[in-house]
Amino acid sequence: MKGIFITMEGPDGSGKSTQIRLLEEYLQDKGYNVVVTREPGGTRISEDIRKVILDTSNTNMSPYTEALLYAASRAQHVHEVILPALRDGKIVICDRFVDSSLVYQGFARGLGIDKIKEINDFATGGLEPDITLFFDIDADTALKRIGNRTKRDRLDKEDIKFHRKVYEGYMKIKEMYSHRIEVINATYDIENIFKHIKDVVDKILELNEKEVLR
Amino acid sequence: MKGIFITMEGPDGSGKSTQIRLLEEYLQDKGYNVVVTREPGGTRISEDIRKVILDTSNTNMSPYTEALLYAASRAQHVHEVILPALRDGKIVICDRFVDSSLVYQGFARGLGIDKIKEINDFATGGLEPDITLFFDIDADTALKRIGNRTKRDRLDKEDIKFHRKVYEGYMKIKEMYSHRIEVINATYDIENIFKHIKDVVDKILELNEKEVLR
Repeated sequence: MKGIFITMEGPDGSGKSTQIRLLEEYLQDKGYNVVVTREPGGTRISEDIRKVILDTSNTNMSPYTEALLYAASRAQHVHEVILPALRDGKIVICDRFVDSSLVYQGFARGLGIDKIKEINDFATGGLEPDITLFFDIDADTALKRIGNRTKRDRLDKEDIKFHRKVYEGYMKIKEMYSHRIEVINATYDIENIFKHIKDVVDKILELNEKEVLR
Repeated sequence: MKGIFITMEGPDGSGKSTQIRLLEEYLQDKGYNVVVTREPGGTRISEDIRKVILDTSNTNMSPYTEALLYAASRAQHVHEVILPALRDGKIVICDRFVDSSLVYQGFARGLGIDKIKEINDFATGGLEPDITLFFDIDADTALKRIGNRTKRDRLDKEDIKFHRKVYEGYMKIKEMYSHRIEVINATYDIENIFKHIKDVVDKILELNEKEVLR
């Protein structure tokens, strides 16, 4: 089997984690070899970098530094975890990938989607997901959902205006990469969201098997 | 006065640190406001990143990760230290800058000088030194000189072949940026090296004053 690369995008509080767990179980029950990972992080080096990014005392971090740290963490993640797993024919489910950087740094922080794409292409060698599930939920609802979480990092402290800009950025990315981005209505209940995801992923698996047989 | 940006390049063991101290004193005695800094490092965040890069347990670091971490550290350094100092009309002396990345990552590690230039232009906003002093010394001599140093990090463990490649890289960069790179024969004694540096820097100061008066 050829490896399949699935990424999950959408704001914190959109329910990605729950659906990732359900999808992992579903695919494992079907006998697939599944690797679940997340960004920023996923390797020891990436976690070290993540600590620098999320350190609440680093509030004077330049947006250029932040964008390059995300790209650095991603480079390690891709070369150490994602590419080897795909080469082994595994299904890789990744919580956030390049799209997050395009939206957060490129669009919301105003560094430019093209510039961020450029440094990330360097990091990933141009690796693209087979499918990206975008968890569509407006900023205000998502923020209300995470309001109850106790542990807060620097990013959670950003104000509502920034999160609305992030949502606007995702709408842009959705148009740019419509060939691989599937919009999931994240305001539905867990079962209905998962049903949608299952349908999408089943189709990919089918296509993939046909391709291998060809 | 308009700020002046001086960078020092060359292998470890080429005597940069000694000459930086002498130049700093010389310029301060002349009444200039001097900022001495180094890469990777120069800010708290950059030092945090430097720790990740030099961590001897991170030997499985991808060269892409390493290159992006150097660029991230540099972005913070430029935006937090170098640009503000130049805006204040200070003289900034920086031990290693973009050229080091072009040579070490772009050329010696084979990632491509153009690609490394691209991610560093993102990091620095395209900032170029007014003058770069290249400490010219062959790899074998430089390595013999640092052989006596006790503390060793991951980079010092690289073999002699790599260091020869680095030297070759510097020769390339010297051609590419001949308008700003001054070659300093680093095998001379301390006094003669410093005399050469003083001549070069005095010329820059003179030009700078004329420019401000114009």
